[in-house]
Amino acid sequence: MDDESAAPAVILFAHGARDPRWAEPFLRVAERVRAAAPDLAVELAYLEHLEPCLDEAARRLASRGAKAIRVVPLFLGRGGHLRVEVPRLVAAAGAGLPGIAIELALPAGDDDAVIEALAEFCLRAARR
Amino acid sequence: MDDESAAPAVILFAHGARDPRWAEPFLRVAERVRAAAPDLAVELAYLEHLEPCLDEAARRLASRGAKAIRVVPLFLGRGGHLRVEVPRLVAAAGAGLPGIAIELALPAGDDDAVIEALAEFCLRAARR
Repeated sequence: MDDESAAPAVILFAHGARDPRWAEPFLRVAERVRAAAPDLAVELAYLEHLEPCLDEAARRLASRGAKAIRVVPLFLGRGGHLRVEVPRLVAAAGAGLPGIAIELALPAGDDDAVIEALAEFCLRAARR
Repeated sequence: MDDESAAPAVILFAHGARDPRWAEPFLRVAERVRAAAPDLAVELAYLEHLEPCLDEAARRLASRGAKAIRVVPLFLGRGGHLRVEVPRLVAAAGAGLPGIAIELALPAGDDDAVIEALAEFCLRAARR
């Protein structure tokens, strides 16, 4: 995040699904991020089915004064969604908000600590 | 896992996608689980697009002597796939393998340590 930014901002971006209960773990993640970083403006957004979409979340952050927004994909696998659709959506959101830098971060599945936490979860689940 | 089981066994179950590179983080998880628990028979299986399916993975474990198999969903959100399709697939796999207990564990998105790891990942990604 740019140190000169008045209001660091992040969009936690998840896939989405028809069943709104699908979002529960992502709401929990967002809640923890907000609690740990009260200075960070946090929006949760979805690729499909659930609201808000990426564009709407970016506009909300812009209206709260964000000048630099980082999009953090809460995706594990990196297939067509992350390789093709998400960069396109990020570019479109940026084009619609001149003067605001919108940047795509690496996805959760690329993060070594997330992989380690998933492996430990599997070991616990196997032994239970 | 049943203590009387000769060969504890686990299926790490992921969604799958058309692009085979999608599976990379899940392969990393499986590799770490195998390294941490050499006595545990581990198969990775997919709901869609990628091979093996759940049924095939269960048959592989049975042929290696597993008597009790735990299916661990590497899903974050819990929508229709996890609520409807996966229990049905687990039941069908069990019906096809008499004498072998196949049990569905809670998904990764229900695990508090996984949620915490995702929140920490988001905070790192936001500050980078």
